[in-house]
This record gives sequence, structure tokens and C-alpha cells, in this order.
Amino acid sequence: MAVLGIDLGGTKLSLGVFKETGEIIFKQTAAIENRGGREVANLIDEQIRKILRTHENIQSIGIAVPGIYHEKTGTVWAPNIPGWSDYPLLRQMEKVGDIPVTIDSDRACYILGEAWMGNAKNCNHAIYLAVGTGIGAGILVDGKVLRGAHDIAGAIGWMALQQPFERKYIDVGNFEFHAAGEGIARVAKELLSKQEDYKGVLAQKDPGSITSHDVFAACDQRDELAIEVLQVCIRFWGMAVANLISLFNPEKIILGGGVFGPAVKFIPAIKDEADKWAQPISKKQVSIEPSALGTDAGLYGAALLALQRIKPQ
Amino acid sequence: MAVLGIDLGGTKLSLGVFKETGEIIFKQTAAIENRGGREVANLIDEQIRKILRTHENIQSIGIAVPGIYHEKTGTVWAPNIPGWSDYPLLRQMEKVGDIPVTIDSDRACYILGEAWMGNAKNCNHAIYLAVGTGIGAGILVDGKVLRGAHDIAGAIGWMALQQPFERKYIDVGNFEFHAAGEGIARVAKELLSKQEDYKGVLAQKDPGSITSHDVFAACDQRDELAIEVLQVCIRFWGMAVANLISLFNPEKIILGGGVFGPAVKFIPAIKDEADKWAQPISKKQVSIEPSALGTDAGLYGAALLALQRIKPQ
Repeated sequence: MAVLGIDLGGTKLSLGVFKETGEIIFKQTAAIENRGGREVANLIDEQIRKILRTHENIQSIGIAVPGIYHEKTGTVWAPNIPGWSDYPLLRQMEKVGDIPVTIDSDRACYILGEAWMGNAKNCNHAIYLAVGTGIGAGILVDGKVLRGAHDIAGAIGWMALQQPFERKYIDVGNFEFHAAGEGIARVAKELLSKQEDYKGVLAQKDPGSITSHDVFAACDQRDELAIEVLQVCIRFWGMAVANLISLFNPEKIILGGGVFGPAVKFIPAIKDEADKWAQPISKKQVSIEPSALGTDAGLYGAALLALQRIKPQ
Repeated sequence: MAVLGIDLGGTKLSLGVFKETGEIIFKQTAAIENRGGREVANLIDEQIRKILRTHENIQSIGIAVPGIYHEKTGTVWAPNIPGWSDYPLLRQMEKVGDIPVTIDSDRACYILGEAWMGNAKNCNHAIYLAVGTGIGAGILVDGKVLRGAHDIAGAIGWMALQQPFERKYIDVGNFEFHAAGEGIARVAKELLSKQEDYKGVLAQKDPGSITSHDVFAACDQRDELAIEVLQVCIRFWGMAVANLISLFNPEKIILGGGVFGPAVKFIPAIKDEADKWAQPISKKQVSIEPSALGTDAGLYGAALLALQRIKPQ
């Protein structure tokens, strides 16, 4: 028996065939290129059919989508896929084979993946804080993904962590504005424009082109401005982790996404910041760790969706 | 058939006999006075026996405790009851009659009460933000109380909402420091000591004796300093509400506890503040309301614990 896990990203589609033990026996990716709307679903359909032909023992399919999955309607909101504001993905995928299909958001799949085969193994209360271009959280409560009343729980990028409110937070939220990948670059640019006598590494760059990776690289070279930018981020990450600890009393908080990555080395500093703020008993009961599965967390989570569907736990 | 709900507070014990429809058919209270340790449990025992003699149809008992209930061990941590750092309440209560006993924290019972017979009726995703001397939250996820890995989820008084960290937050947390009943009085005193030329209502008081009620009363008289103190609170309350909306995507947030009460009139201002920060779709899906049950929320919740035990829903 095997299951098929599918992770639909913004630029590529990953597919993995898993044994029920969690072992990957086949994996491939396909570029999404300029596809939108139905073309993306057709690409998934086509890739599934190919794999089903060569792996006849697949009994269930799980799909992670980059946005929100509405469980009641089977539709997907994915801001980076043109035409997917309420796309009926479930209906279309159920026609592919005579096999059950289960869909959930990427952040839900990240924490499911880590709880199944990563650093949150065997945890029933665990949170995956995904910091990439944006910020979101996959939250496991009693072994089940926290969905909320309308499937959009875990929108932690909107967390309020610094007073007073400023108009610049309107589009992405206070936490994401300061501490997501784009936020890191944005804060660096803001500081650069204010510090005219700064002559460090980042001054060599065209300010418009600075990315979070430039800031991390400059920090490695002990650049003052980069260090200042990342100290602000560490404070935000630490406060967000603290708030998750106080509210959820989890066993594990996993830091993942593209930024963790290079920010993994700051986890001790993030713990120190979280330690200041969090509920004093809860903070001793939680372990804060990097993702074990990296870019495959969503794929593992999608495979677990598939597996749970046919073997309820 | 009837159930017995018991709300153990810091100063008194409330007991109510409920029909399964939620109607209270008998209610009484007993003062705790200077009791501690086993004497408090003996008082509960004695009161239960009395009520069982006159209400023979009671089939289940629920108890709300002012602190943390550890489900696995049946023990209670209640900071305001001397000797209750890990008190084996369940074992003792199960001996009272041949009737099942269910215990949970007061904040869990508040939201259960509101979901059963109050302003969160029929909600599966609802939060009770209890602002009294301290601050806590009872959180309902899929109709079940969020407990966390070790029963201390909902410790929202520790929420980090204002940078940077200051040592004064160590004992109670950033949110509670500023916006609980004691916090309101504390912030007023801080401001008073700094504003030497202030001649308003609060200047007539002995600064050491100022309570949150004095601040609310002064605010009603349009006292500048009191208004300033409460504007800070409204910002903290609004940010906390916003963070609950973004993380949990709930149907309802109920504002209760001793402070709501007098702060109920600020709910529109709190909504306005929350509106600035919260996830933009989630904030349209939530309703923010005062408690319908007031000081009886815990009693109703305890009765529902009792009822759910014998009629699983």
C-alpha cells in the first residue's frame, strides 16, 4: 500500500509516493511556469495520472495548497495562482481516479509533516511557524489541525506586537511587515535611506534590489546595519513564539520556511527573547526547534493527509 | 434529571442545580472565609451533601476552580487558596456520592457557560476573554476547551503586545500588567506620580488606595488622567482581541470578568482598535460581545461539564 502526497507551491508542483511508514519511494517535480486557473489543476491531474500508471498500489491522495482550503465547499483560495480565489479543486481531483483525495493548506501540511516524520514526531500539540515571503502558522491541537470557524486560523502574520498602529501594516499585518522575508529587506531599505553615513556591505548594493538573503550575508560579515535589522526580527520572532507558548501551551514550536534557512542560527537568541515574555510554566514545557524536513515538510504533510483518510488514527 | 454546577471563587462558593435545559432550579452560595487546604474541599463536600439530600435527581456534578485543573492527575493549582498547589480535588469529590464529578478551570467554564446559555450559544469556535484582577482566556476549538499539552493553554495575560520588554512584566505578563483590574490602578498611580500639576478627580484620593473602579468613575466624570489610562487599556484589549481573531478565526469573542462590568461601554472602541490589526477576512466573521451570564458564567459552565459527562455531545 502507498499514498501520493502533492505539494503545490507558487512556482512548482512536488509529488511524492510514500509507504505508510513514511518512506518516500518516488519523487518528482513539475514547473508551474505561467499557468493559471484551470491549467494548474490540469497540470496536477496529468501528473497524478502518470504516477498512478506506474504505482498501482496508491490508495489515497493528499494535496497541500498555497493558501486557504475551504473544507465545506472543497474550494481553494491561493493568492499567487491567477484565478484561484475560490477554485473547486476537490471536485476536479476526485475525478482523476477512483481514489480518495484530501486537501489542506500548506501551513496545515507543514505541521502534519513535522508531526509525522520530522521534529514534532508524536506531538499532539505542536506549531509550525512558517516564515518565508509571508508568515503563517500551522497549529496542531489534540493532534488535529486548528481550522477555526471558516478555515483561516493560524494567520499569525497579522499578529499585533508593536504599538502604535501604522498605516504600513494594513496590507500584511504588523508581524509580517517586520519579520517575513520581504519585511527583512524592507526594514533594511528603510534604515539605509535614513543612515546616510553608513558605508557597510549593503551600501554597495542597489537599494531597490536588496533581499533578505543580502541582509543575512551582510550579517555574517558583521555588518552593523544588517545586525540591527535582524535584531528587530529576532525580537518580533521571539515575541510571536512567546505568544504561541502562552496561548497554546504546546510541546513543540517548529521554525521553518525559507527564512529558517539562514535564520536557524538565531534560534537560541529567539528562545532568549521568548523566555522574557512567555507564561513561566509553559515556556519550560516547550521545545523550539528548526524544521527537520525543510522544503519537503508540505509534501510529507500531504502524504499524511492521504494516509489519515484511509487509516483514521 | 438534574445536574449540580459548582463555581469555586477566591472568596465564595456558588452552587446551582440545573435542569438539562439550562434552567436553574436552586442556587446558593457559601463564604470561604479564611479556609485553606483541606478545609476548602471539606466545605465543598459538605455543601454538596446538603444539596444532594434535597435534590435526589442530581446525576452529575461539575466544578469550576480558580486556577489550573490537571486532567490526568485530577489535581488543582489555585494560587489564591492556601495549600492548593497540586490539590487532589477529584479523588476527594468522587467520594461524596455515587455520582460522576468533572472539574475544569474557571476560564474553561466561562466559555462553556456562554456557549451553552449565554452570548456564544451554539458556537463551536468561541473565546471568553476574562479581565478581572488578572487576565485569562477560555478557548473553545471545535466545541472543546483548548487545554494544551499540560492544561495551561489560554494564559493570555502573558501576551506580548508592547516592545521593549521591561522588568515590571516579569510577575504577571505584559498584557495583564497594563490591562487587568490591578493594571488599570497601577498605570493610574504611575501617571499620577509623574503629573504633578494634575488636579483632577483622582488627585483627591490617597494614591495608594486607587482601584480600577475609581478610574472608571473618574472617566465617567471626563477626568483627563482616567481617560488616558483607559485609552491605553483599550489599545491593549483591542490588540489582544485582534490576535485572537487572527490566530483562532472564531465566531465569537466574549468580553467578561469584573472589569467588563464597567468597561462594557468601551466595546465599540475595542472593536475599532482590533479592526486595525486583525486578519481582514477573519475580523468580518467574528462578533465581539459582552458576557450574557456575568458572574454566573462559571456556574453555567460547571453545570455543562456535569451534563456533558452523562450526555456526551
